[in-house]
Amino acid sequence: MSDDLSLLQREVERYKAVYEVNRALGGTLDLDRLLALIMDRTTEVMNADRSSLFLIDWDSEELWSKVAQGVRYRELRFPMGLGLAGSVAASGEILNIPDAYEDERFNQAIDRQTGYRTRSVLCCPMNNKQGDRIGVIQVLNKLSGEPFTQEDEELLCALAGSAAVAVENAQLYEEQKLSFVSFVETLSTAMDARDPITAGHSRRVTAYSVAIGEELGYGEKDLEILRVAALLHDVGKIGVPEIVLFKDGRLTDEEYQVIQSHASHTLNILGKIHFDREKREIPMMAGTHHERLDGKGYPLELSGEDIPEAGRVMAVGDVFDAITSRRHYRDRMEFRKVLNVLTEERGTHFQPEFVDAFMRLKLRRIVEIMESGNPEPVAPEDLERFESMTLAELKALLDGAEAPVEGQAELVERFQYYYRRSLPEGYVPMD
Amino acid sequence: MSDDLSLLQREVERYKAVYEVNRALGGTLDLDRLLALIMDRTTEVMNADRSSLFLIDWDSEELWSKVAQGVRYRELRFPMGLGLAGSVAASGEILNIPDAYEDERFNQAIDRQTGYRTRSVLCCPMNNKQGDRIGVIQVLNKLSGEPFTQEDEELLCALAGSAAVAVENAQLYEEQKLSFVSFVETLSTAMDARDPITAGHSRRVTAYSVAIGEELGYGEKDLEILRVAALLHDVGKIGVPEIVLFKDGRLTDEEYQVIQSHASHTLNILGKIHFDREKREIPMMAGTHHERLDGKGYPLELSGEDIPEAGRVMAVGDVFDAITSRRHYRDRMEFRKVLNVLTEERGTHFQPEFVDAFMRLKLRRIVEIMESGNPEPVAPEDLERFESMTLAELKALLDGAEAPVEGQAELVERFQYYYRRSLPEGYVPMD
Repeated sequence: MSDDLSLLQREVERYKAVYEVNRALGGTLDLDRLLALIMDRTTEVMNADRSSLFLIDWDSEELWSKVAQGVRYRELRFPMGLGLAGSVAASGEILNIPDAYEDERFNQAIDRQTGYRTRSVLCCPMNNKQGDRIGVIQVLNKLSGEPFTQEDEELLCALAGSAAVAVENAQLYEEQKLSFVSFVETLSTAMDARDPITAGHSRRVTAYSVAIGEELGYGEKDLEILRVAALLHDVGKIGVPEIVLFKDGRLTDEEYQVIQSHASHTLNILGKIHFDREKREIPMMAGTHHERLDGKGYPLELSGEDIPEAGRVMAVGDVFDAITSRRHYRDRMEFRKVLNVLTEERGTHFQPEFVDAFMRLKLRRIVEIMESGNPEPVAPEDLERFESMTLAELKALLDGAEAPVEGQAELVERFQYYYRRSLPEGYVPMD
Repeated sequence: MSDDLSLLQREVERYKAVYEVNRALGGTLDLDRLLALIMDRTTEVMNADRSSLFLIDWDSEELWSKVAQGVRYRELRFPMGLGLAGSVAASGEILNIPDAYEDERFNQAIDRQTGYRTRSVLCCPMNNKQGDRIGVIQVLNKLSGEPFTQEDEELLCALAGSAAVAVENAQLYEEQKLSFVSFVETLSTAMDARDPITAGHSRRVTAYSVAIGEELGYGEKDLEILRVAALLHDVGKIGVPEIVLFKDGRLTDEEYQVIQSHASHTLNILGKIHFDREKREIPMMAGTHHERLDGKGYPLELSGEDIPEAGRVMAVGDVFDAITSRRHYRDRMEFRKVLNVLTEERGTHFQPEFVDAFMRLKLRRIVEIMESGNPEPVAPEDLERFESMTLAELKALLDGAEAPVEGQAELVERFQYYYRRSLPEGYVPMD
């Protein structure tokens, strides 16, 4: 009777644990976070020292996993069949090994690398609702020092089943998100590519805007939203006839107005898209990249904080890209003048803090974005050196406000070389 | 001791049930199916007669639910605070009512409408992981005839918690899907709208293709994939200069080739998008709408079943829309001739079964699509009458192969009226 009771009590505990894990797993559709969560909770519930989870890539017949490394994740991959996890992935059979070193399938190399000492191992396949094997979950070194029991096997299998369902949902969600973003990227690239001269514009404006966002301390979500908005900022150009958009020569006032209408087209077109709650501001963000802080911009003539922050950030990136690009009717603006435009318009056209954030960026980042379309890449050693100077420092040197110290003059020269290199013969900068 | 045992046994049962429900709920991200599943499983686990689930729309302060009605779902909405479910939504407190008719909050009107007799009611708020109330779940009439117990309350709350997490995930997933599809729609509309003459083309080709798919018995998923592929079939036109694309007059051979390149642009552009597994064929589907069954199409010169089925379906819809639309250089083709093109090219350009499926469509469906952009809508009574004739029947009458019976001649005349009505004065059909 008392045996029955303790048996039942343990069963209750088990179900409770699985229920709790289940609920926790349901709470996120972020795959990286989910995988970390599964491992944490499994280690805890199983009274083990650590857990790992490997997903099966059936195309390449490999197992893969992501391992946290600082704030990033590193991907691990190995062939199916290798080690204990690999053999569970291949066979679909649970493995309960009291001492890994006595099992020839165990790969001792990893312990030797990491200094860890694996003893007991319990490894269970993860099957989804359709019964397909999508991965394996493995727990190491039961804390009691005993081998894992049959009850442990049942518990881990239940957890693996819940984990499989949660992982599949997260994968579906991430695929859907990826579809959306890759569609946005592809579209904006295709639109820019209509004219070789504007090719890459949206991508560069996006990269500059994201760099400013990072400098301002934006979180991952805000950066993602800014990214989508920036990729789409010129989508309204689809509503501007190419004969005006790509006109080679001075524009009439009327033509200029037609070109300006692209910003309100962006507003209208994006306004028809169903964005989810957190992306709902994207149409307004994207449609306000030509607004000015002083209210003299377009299309809505908003001013100050009435302009969505992302619109104000993009304004800096958009102008910077426009004047550092070669256009139909003029060449790249001399870089000293480019920086003067930004600082002169600080507070009138641009939000001061956003210009300042931009000026804090390293030349390396700027060159990487600005020259990304160039068939002749920037030499890696030069890129390395560009890491040591910010735009603000470059400006001080170009303006003569600071005297160059140790190698700075040469660095500036290298920068100018790359900036000017592909200009046509006889180029005379606008000034 | 035996009391402890049965208590524990019941607890085990409860956790088991919740665990099972949890696993079941994790298995779908389809919101309609999920809501139905939650109600089914809750009714079963709670030993009750029926269950209902209401989600809270905090913007409008309403509760809403979807009720299966045949194969469709009907949406129910009522204000927060109304009835027992409404008051739980407003207060967040669980309600356990032994006899609904003795509680003044209960809305007897619904029982009167449906003939149902509500007795016991247990209604529990659904809280998500952040503790926000997203809905309520309600079970009616415990099968034993007894009131619901405190154990029942605990069980329902556990179920409601799992349901809340699953529902939120499904909502996030559906929003993401909706974003993608609405983006595709908006983009294809914006691209077509560049030229008023082609405005609506992609949308109409999509509608014709989906109609053929339905006629062929496609399931919901295949229809959705066909829909996205058809909306995107002309996305490659972004790579064709407008000066050629919209040329008013005869095209040179070279210009014709440039226009034809849009199909391979569609292949290339869509090939860069990350589609999820089930949508992976979309680029090939969309890029093969100008292939011909006999291999004389473009861009890949595929033939027969080497052309993706969706490409063969779209071919019918695309040609039909092209020749029933007014273009720069010609007017709408006489409808008798339109149908002859389809049947003459049956087996050479088009897959015979797909032409046949198209010819089985009712005039109503064709008119609805063909005239969807017309500012003067088709009279509802005419639409109604167009339901009684298929394209194949119309063709037999137009060709004189069949003699019209009871009102058919008038119907054909009405159809021709709508088809020809907005043509310019002095229009002479191509023939």
